Amino acid sequence: MNLKEYIANVPDFPKPGIQFKDITPLMAHGPAFRYATEQMTEFARKHHAELIVGPEARGFIFGCPVAAEMGIGFAPVRKPGKLPRETVDFNYDLEYGSNTLSMHSDAISQGQRVIIVDDLLATGGTVEATVKLIEQLGGEVVGCAFLIELEELNGRKALGDYNVMSLMQY
Amino acid sequence: MNLKEYIANVPDFPKPGIQFKDITPLMAHGPAFRYATEQMTEFARKHHAELIVGPEARGFIFGCPVAAEMGIGFAPVRKPGKLPRETVDFNYDLEYGSNTLSMHSDAISQGQRVIIVDDLLATGGTVEATVKLIEQLGGEVVGCAFLIELEELNGRKALGDYNVMSLMQY
Repeated sequence: MNLKEYIANVPDFPKPGIQFKDITPLMAHGPAFRYATEQMTEFARKHHAELIVGPEARGFIFGCPVAAEMGIGFAPVRKPGKLPRETVDFNYDLEYGSNTLSMHSDAISQGQRVIIVDDLLATGGTVEATVKLIEQLGGEVVGCAFLIELEELNGRKALGDYNVMSLMQY
Repeated sequence: MNLKEYIANVPDFPKPGIQFKDITPLMAHGPAFRYATEQMTEFARKHHAELIVGPEARGFIFGCPVAAEMGIGFAPVRKPGKLPRETVDFNYDLEYGSNTLSMHSDAISQGQRVIIVDDLLATGGTVEATVKLIEQLGGEVVGCAFLIELEELNGRKALGDYNVMSLMQY
C-alpha cells in the first residue's frame, strides 16, 4: 500500500516556509490507517515491546492502537500540567520554538522494554526528550516507530544506535 | 473485568474541589486497556459505525484503537490552530472554563454513520459540541462511547435521544 497517497502537503503551516505533512486523510481512510498501525505493531512485536510510549497528541493516534492490538500498556507523554500525579519533566528545543514534556514518575517499570511511537520524525527533539524521560524512569528503549520521517532534518542521526523505523520518508 | 480497579482518584485536580479520575493506570495495564477498547469496538460494530470521531487528546486514546480494529477511519476534533486545512469551529462552555473545537471541513461524508469516543462524560459540553460539528458536516451520530460517566453531572441528559454507552459510572 502506498501510504503517501493519503498524506496532504500543506505549505506554510504552521508558519511560512514549513511544508506541513497532514496525516488526517490517512487517518480517515480505514484500510490505510489500519495498515499503518499493523506495520508498527509488527515492529513492536519484533523487538518484544512490553510498553508503548507516545507523546501527545499525535503519538496517541498510532501508539494506542499498537498497544491495544498487542495487549500491552500505553504510557502518555504530555505537556506540563496535564498529568495529575507526580511527574518527571524534560525541556528541549524543537523545530519551531521550545517545549517541556512530562511523564508520570511511576509510568515505567525497571528494565521494561519500551517502543516509542509518534507520527513524525523531524529533527528528533521530541523523541530524544522522550528517550531521556523513559531512561530516567528505568525503562529500556528498544525501538522508535514513526509514520513519517523528514530525512533532511537528520532526526535518525540524533537517535544514534536506537532501532528506528518509519513508514514513509520525504 | 472490574475496570474501576485501574482508575486513580486524584483530589483537587486540576483545581480545588474536583475529584479527577486518572485513567493512566488503566492505559498502563495491557489487558484492561485492551478490554476497554474491545467493549467500545463492540458498541461501534453494533451501530454499524463508518467513522470514529474523538476529541483531543484523550479521545484519541480509545477512539483510534476502535477505528484501527474495525478498519474504518478516525477524524480528530482539535483545538483551534492545530488542523492545517479549512475547518469548522464551535464554541462552548465546559465544567471549568470555556473552549473552542475544530474539525476539518472535509472530515465527514454526507450521511456517514459516526460514533464519538471519549474518555469522560461529565456535563456533556465537549460531546455536545462534537455532535454539532459532525451534524454540521452532514454526518449522522449513531452513538457515543465513554470510558467513564460522572452520573451526577447529567451529561447523558444533555445527549437526549442519542445512543450512549459508558464502561464505568461514578
